Amino acid sequence: MITRRTDLALEAKEIYESESGSFLEGVKIEKKELENCIVTIVDVLDDEGAKIMNKGIGKYITLESDLMKYSDDDSRNEMISYLKEELSILFGDDKTKKTLVIGLGNWNITSDSLGPKTVSKTLVTRHIFRNYNKDYDDDFTEVSALSPGVMGITGIETSETVKSIVDNIKPDRVVVIDALASRKVERVNATIQISTAGISPGAGVGNKRKALNKEYLGVDVIAIGVPTVVDAATLTIDILDVAIDNLIEQSEKGQQFYNMLKDLKEEEKYSLIKESLEPYDKNLIVTPKDIDETIENLAIIISEGLNKSLHPGKK
Amino acid sequence: MITRRTDLALEAKEIYESESGSFLEGVKIEKKELENCIVTIVDVLDDEGAKIMNKGIGKYITLESDLMKYSDDDSRNEMISYLKEELSILFGDDKTKKTLVIGLGNWNITSDSLGPKTVSKTLVTRHIFRNYNKDYDDDFTEVSALSPGVMGITGIETSETVKSIVDNIKPDRVVVIDALASRKVERVNATIQISTAGISPGAGVGNKRKALNKEYLGVDVIAIGVPTVVDAATLTIDILDVAIDNLIEQSEKGQQFYNMLKDLKEEEKYSLIKESLEPYDKNLIVTPKDIDETIENLAIIISEGLNKSLHPGKK
Amino acid sequence: MITRRTDLALEAKEIYESESGSFLEGVKIEKKELENCIVTIVDVLDDEGAKIMNKGIGKYITLESDLMKYSDDDSRNEMISYLKEELSILFGDDKTKKTLVIGLGNWNITSDSLGPKTVSKTLVTRHIFRNYNKDYDDDFTEVSALSPGVMGITGIETSETVKSIVDNIKPDRVVVIDALASRKVERVNATIQISTAGISPGAGVGNKRKALNKEYLGVDVIAIGVPTVVDAATLTIDILDVAIDNLIEQSEKGQQFYNMLKDLKEEEKYSLIKESLEPYDKNLIVTPKDIDETIENLAIIISEGLNKSLHPGKK
Amino acid sequence: MITRRTDLALEAKEIYESESGSFLEGVKIEKKELENCIVTIVDVLDDEGAKIMNKGIGKYITLESDLMKYSDDDSRNEMISYLKEELSILFGDDKTKKTLVIGLGNWNITSDSLGPKTVSKTLVTRHIFRNYNKDYDDDFTEVSALSPGVMGITGIETSETVKSIVDNIKPDRVVVIDALASRKVERVNATIQISTAGISPGAGVGNKRKALNKEYLGVDVIAIGVPTVVDAATLTIDILDVAIDNLIEQSEKGQQFYNMLKDLKEEEKYSLIKESLEPYDKNLIVTPKDIDETIENLAIIISEGLNKSLHPGKK
Repeated sequence: MITRRTDLALEAKEIYESESGSFLEGVKIEKKELENCIVTIVDVLDDEGAKIMNKGIGKYITLESDLMKYSDDDSRNEMISYLKEELSILFGDDKTKKTLVIGLGNWNITSDSLGPKTVSKTLVTRHIFRNYNKDYDDDFTEVSALSPGVMGITGIETSETVKSIVDNIKPDRVVVIDALASRKVERVNATIQISTAGISPGAGVGNKRKALNKEYLGVDVIAIGVPTVVDAATLTIDILDVAIDNLIEQSEKGQQFYNMLKDLKEEEKYSLIKESLEPYDKNLIVTPKDIDETIENLAIIISEGLNKSLHPGKK
Repeated sequence: MITRRTDLALEAKEIYESESGSFLEGVKIEKKELENCIVTIVDVLDDEGAKIMNKGIGKYITLESDLMKYSDDDSRNEMISYLKEELSILFGDDKTKKTLVIGLGNWNITSDSLGPKTVSKTLVTRHIFRNYNKDYDDDFTEVSALSPGVMGITGIETSETVKSIVDNIKPDRVVVIDALASRKVERVNATIQISTAGISPGAGVGNKRKALNKEYLGVDVIAIGVPTVVDAATLTIDILDVAIDNLIEQSEKGQQFYNMLKDLKEEEKYSLIKESLEPYDKNLIVTPKDIDETIENLAIIISEGLNKSLHPGKK
Repeated sequence: MITRRTDLALEAKEIYESESGSFLEGVKIEKKELENCIVTIVDVLDDEGAKIMNKGIGKYITLESDLMKYSDDDSRNEMISYLKEELSILFGDDKTKKTLVIGLGNWNITSDSLGPKTVSKTLVTRHIFRNYNKDYDDDFTEVSALSPGVMGITGIETSETVKSIVDNIKPDRVVVIDALASRKVERVNATIQISTAGISPGAGVGNKRKALNKEYLGVDVIAIGVPTVVDAATLTIDILDVAIDNLIEQSEKGQQFYNMLKDLKEEEKYSLIKESLEPYDKNLIVTPKDIDETIENLAIIISEGLNKSLHPGKK
Repeated sequence: MITRRTDLALEAKEIYESESGSFLEGVKIEKKELENCIVTIVDVLDDEGAKIMNKGIGKYITLESDLMKYSDDDSRNEMISYLKEELSILFGDDKTKKTLVIGLGNWNITSDSLGPKTVSKTLVTRHIFRNYNKDYDDDFTEVSALSPGVMGITGIETSETVKSIVDNIKPDRVVVIDALASRKVERVNATIQISTAGISPGAGVGNKRKALNKEYLGVDVIAIGVPTVVDAATLTIDILDVAIDNLIEQSEKGQQFYNMLKDLKEEEKYSLIKESLEPYDKNLIVTPKDIDETIENLAIIISEGLNKSLHPGKK
């Protein structure tokens, strides 16, 4: 089982294959190379695949593109159109479906604010539909949105808050936006993962024990996430691996070193470094320096991707 | 009936008495002059009083103090202790009571962010009580908190969101924090109103049709509000009144002017000015220039007042 | 002389003509009605005109457009192109000219942060020119930028700071960005004024005694400003005027009222209201509620207008 | 020579001694253990010491305290009093001395905003002294302050801007506030370094080539810095070192490993890891998650330390 901290199915697969050296049954992969974006669909088919990947059964669509790093209109609009494309397929074209968008994370911590920021830019229509007593519109579908906050500030499990709202306003599907953790620095702010498996407890970032999936909420759940941080322990071990590879190539001591490290199990190495980071590890994250601007740009991309796929009349 | 825009019971009474020239039955007033703070308790006793005041039946405790305008430790701590005093009386000393704090308003608009900012500084304990399976503690009571957002961003009536959560987590009381509108510029950021009547529809700031009271939520509701803005029409008419008084005193034309204006009804005057402000009135507010710093200071005062009155062990 | 608080030459002219009922010599006006933007050029030709207008000799180009109120790409880009057009004419096409952009105002106060926000989005190149020892480039001109802060935070007159930098780095022209005060609410955030007269002492917003003009700095000064606030006294008197007009039309008492007010001098009226606003007037402003978002949008428009007119190679 | 990235003289000494195994001549150390704060004075006495330490000649006073991590009044005030104590000694008691405070760094990047934030909270008096034509006051000294911005936004070397202002307003000393880089995660936001050596080129954080010292500016320079980040390469190598130590203790392979690593030079190791971090290293930093709140607290501590040591009448 993959225990190393990653929220990306793509990475879980990479880790498994590099560690086991074997092909992963129960997981199907498909890859599309578009002009400025690589789309990979990881399909976790059965319990066996789910267990190994430490991810729920379902589709995980990953968009990888450097376009996300630029905030000019052209790059942004191109990225929005890739995202809109994938979301439109998942949402289908039934205009009577009602959507509730949930922005996970903490407003007050920049690296964790992607969810709430996206919610504040999402075009909501539920109050208008209700005000005019409408069930259907050619150009817009019924959308509501909520940022439930984090347990440390609310004292309430996020999943409890969401469940309360879902039971009350009864949407047909829930879209959950979250900041993720990645293993690879180069994926930070350059990857969007869309998943039909929802967010399962244990898969997330440490202490958020959220179970936001169809089983718990009773409606379809689509999760959209972007890795915005790498945790310090993960970063260290990954850099260490690259450094060791370099060392092996360059140094005459390489072979000797390699033999020794080969004997070290991956998890042994991780817990060793994790331990070394204590006690200051708890809230230590690795981010790009211009994180404020980056999160703003990502929130625009995701909210516009949602607005255009949920509201056919939105230009 | 008082239709001029004020959320303060104190002002509703002032307006009534100045306009009608008569004493208000069904409303009892009590006033305490503390060292640096005037506490006024307006008690709306019956439907008659409620109708005239355009406020629900219940107590409205107003703390007026210039201490709120200073952010040094001494001023702040003195103000917190006045607030703690009044809240402690309302909360009583039953340590098994569970409290849900609701922060109304919009994170993204400084003048409207008092509620969410206060929530983010409130000491929540519900998750800890539940984690340790406790029902009682000597030093802390069970507190949770939520910022439900505003309808324009969520598409959901704020009262629906709160009702969903209340029905699910079943607190014994709800404390609602909100930014209010005042008629008087000198009360802005210098007044706290605590009310046991909750927040009734129609009493609020224009388009937020929230009914957060015991009748709807099924539990006690205590509202805490601070006027942070004056709307432009209200300001204009109030300044106009003062200006006219000055004019009457200074000018030989005074008597003539006065006779004419006496014939103008108050509401006629208001709607006249309101009309003149259209169409740019909608979102026009009058604030102090340093509103960002001011709201931060108020959020500390209210959250600490809550923390100290809800958690006996909090120093 | 016009003493009522306005930073816009357009308004100074309007006030003069409405009050004096006569045509203003020494000031030439030209008006272009473009598709979604009205451009007015007020040319103050001589000392006589300057004295009456309370503005320095020079051109004042005003762009009025509701496009500035929308933050979608299309509205924004159209507004940027109107601004670029006017700036390009003023800047001319000599690519060896060096520009220093100065952002006046206070970072910490949203309504006053237009200057610093614009500076932070302006494309600066001076360090690159110097690093590569270049004097000329086909695509870019040499641009530097500075936000000198406000005297209350620095203890230094803004003009002293700018003069120190100008004397040291010797640009060929200074572009000054500032938030202005308008008399009319409908012009707030819907008007850009470009002036070749710089910013003269006494013309500004009360206590900033800045003299940023060619006489003091020794180089051409172009000021770009947007009215982002209306002061409360100005607003009140303007609303009052409209209200009185309405009253006169509606009321049979109109003629009587009119005769009386005719006798009141404009300044008498203003100082009367100003006085009524004391003592809370000092920092009281009227703004749109969504001022944070508005200022961000304006800073993008002005910085892009500058970037495209100063750097021929900038797309 | 110490090339590993640290701005702290304390750490430079630690690195030297751990790497060379020898005592450092030309550098004198003194240590005071106060109740909740350790004060270490590193005195770089001559060119020899300066060269080895890669720091200018002068005193480096380091305050290490966990008090800085708490934002309650008591912790904050205790920390302020330790800082005030050290600054008062350096400033002396000549009340005619004029001080210019410079806040280095970028407003828009939270981890880099300590300088500008501190400046905005510093009590400036120069404009008041000049307004009243005073040279002396019993309670206050003449203080001005400026945040010159960063070269990427201004196009001007920070040192050029500061030099321009110093030449013009002629203070007797300059106090420079800056965010530093540390080698040790546990020192981040828990250490203040005060230095009489100013900020020398090459000693800083990579690309800021600032020379803010007495030689260049012509007046005394006192630098106050707090490490707010650790760069990713530094962190990795330090964690790696701890991990290896753990490994050596735990593993039977320890001796063999140790022998091998002993042969690797420190710099070889660093450049190896640095290389592995390319190309995404450039702006990658390690910070605590709650960096926004932390920087705010530090800015209060430093500005109050300055206010109380510069203004004898400030309570």
